[in-house]
Amino acid sequence: MKVGILGYGNLGRGVEAAIKKSNDMELVAVYTRRDPSSLTIATPSAAVKSTADLDTGKEDIDVLIICGGSATDLPEMTPKYAAMYNVIDSFDTHANIPTHFANVDKAAKESGHIGLISCGWDPGMFSLNRVYAASILPDGQAYTFWGKGVSQGHSDAVRRIDGVKDARQYTIPVPAALERVRAGENPELTTREKHTRECFVVAEEGADLARIENEIKTMPNYFSDYDTTVHFISEEEMKRDHSGLPHGGSVIYTGTSSEGTKHVVEYSLTLDSNPEFTGAVLVAYARAVARMAAAGQTGGRTVFDVAPAQLSPLSGEELRAHML
Amino acid sequence: MKVGILGYGNLGRGVEAAIKKSNDMELVAVYTRRDPSSLTIATPSAAVKSTADLDTGKEDIDVLIICGGSATDLPEMTPKYAAMYNVIDSFDTHANIPTHFANVDKAAKESGHIGLISCGWDPGMFSLNRVYAASILPDGQAYTFWGKGVSQGHSDAVRRIDGVKDARQYTIPVPAALERVRAGENPELTTREKHTRECFVVAEEGADLARIENEIKTMPNYFSDYDTTVHFISEEEMKRDHSGLPHGGSVIYTGTSSEGTKHVVEYSLTLDSNPEFTGAVLVAYARAVARMAAAGQTGGRTVFDVAPAQLSPLSGEELRAHML
Repeated sequence: MKVGILGYGNLGRGVEAAIKKSNDMELVAVYTRRDPSSLTIATPSAAVKSTADLDTGKEDIDVLIICGGSATDLPEMTPKYAAMYNVIDSFDTHANIPTHFANVDKAAKESGHIGLISCGWDPGMFSLNRVYAASILPDGQAYTFWGKGVSQGHSDAVRRIDGVKDARQYTIPVPAALERVRAGENPELTTREKHTRECFVVAEEGADLARIENEIKTMPNYFSDYDTTVHFISEEEMKRDHSGLPHGGSVIYTGTSSEGTKHVVEYSLTLDSNPEFTGAVLVAYARAVARMAAAGQTGGRTVFDVAPAQLSPLSGEELRAHML
Repeated sequence: MKVGILGYGNLGRGVEAAIKKSNDMELVAVYTRRDPSSLTIATPSAAVKSTADLDTGKEDIDVLIICGGSATDLPEMTPKYAAMYNVIDSFDTHANIPTHFANVDKAAKESGHIGLISCGWDPGMFSLNRVYAASILPDGQAYTFWGKGVSQGHSDAVRRIDGVKDARQYTIPVPAALERVRAGENPELTTREKHTRECFVVAEEGADLARIENEIKTMPNYFSDYDTTVHFISEEEMKRDHSGLPHGGSVIYTGTSSEGTKHVVEYSLTLDSNPEFTGAVLVAYARAVARMAAAGQTGGRTVFDVAPAQLSPLSGEELRAHML
């Protein structure tokens, strides 16, 4: 299976690492908007090419894994390349998924390709687990908790504050809320009751720390609805203790099958590296994309449309004999 | 969607409860090998019929949910009825799955129906989670823990001992083993290190309790490889404290995406009623069976072959807008 990667940031490198672990896949090329000669990748056998090469529509790849941002890159890139290749992305702006899907579906159908969107862990594996649990126990409720993990959007928001040199924001589920949900209490939880936020900030010399802390804690949308803790640390501490991108979380579904009979279904992830795990999910679904396309299917897809067997390098016989 | 249930034991009643929770489903009839007039079911609108009616091949049902035992019922029943109807079962003798699948696949293909086997939580949801995690992180290892929950096979084995009036056996995962796995240690664990067994026994008056306890603890296959605790209790205590059939467990998958970067994926179930949850899984997959058949598909299937969207009463648009 010949794979191309578009974009070589954290996620692109995560996808590259996952392809290395997959015997049935070959990374053909990384495509970049930068000068290709400025990029050194971790796969010696793969080429580094310009997006101009990709734009010819003539690259010999079975799937293109698009590793761009959801704000501006993917809404444009995924439909564009679905008109030329089988594609997959990790589009995660929940409110815009229907529009993005419609655009990708149209381009993929017209060109005879498959375009799978919103793949990763949320949206992605968490979404799957919400659908499985709700389909099994329609009389129930899903709770999603994120963390403990680094939120890159929130870290960026803190970095934009005047006097902040660097920042890292952790999203942390509230243990008492987790316990109540796991106990099947079906609580109504406010935003503040579900998660807390913890910020590690490197301030510029002489900056007004009290002002920075206040600006963080009162920032609308990002922090004002949460209990937030701010720690000022040195650049050395930031580098030593906060250079990773761990994340994770839980989908907990509680439902009843008859009067008084309760069940709790929980799916939890504890990830050393958010981009590497997301990359690994993308690569498994890239396998399914190539297979669906080889079977003559076309159009838009999400993780909901993919049978689990399509993700595995094992045959149906092997899966039934060893995994069922 | 018109559903029939074959067999009205614990599982059949669990399926009936799940159909009640599903607005798009109607229980048409319960089929029994007993005298139909001897059976009172919980769905007034449904008929109770003899298997002789089913054997005509003319019953007006979209799916038949076969609630028989894996030892002798299902190997015969599922291929037989796959020749007449769309069928689904919860066959759970792991070693015989390939043979059972081949028989059901053949009958279903020849008759133009769908036959889905081995559906429930293990095999079933646990199998799915093993496949998802192993597909995402091929460099990893799956651990399955069962319990705390009642094992009916082990309870039956204790009941067969001379001098035992009633018995209930709980399978319990060893907390230290769970912790080591969750910590990503990838331990090698023996059978004894993973689970303990706890038995509650009502003995006949005057029975030799020491002999019974010894017979349990040394019973090959069932108990001799485990640390087992035996409690003798009264009939009243058995009825009061051990009349439910709770179960559950965890699939914990630990894998690495690159040197030193680890991830832990855990899927856990805590079930008040094993047969009601198994019944609820069967009903969700029965929806998929009816849809696959309506789309003209035929042959054998397992949970690996079913896209999650097929299980949900929601449309693709609704799933993308609200669940992704």
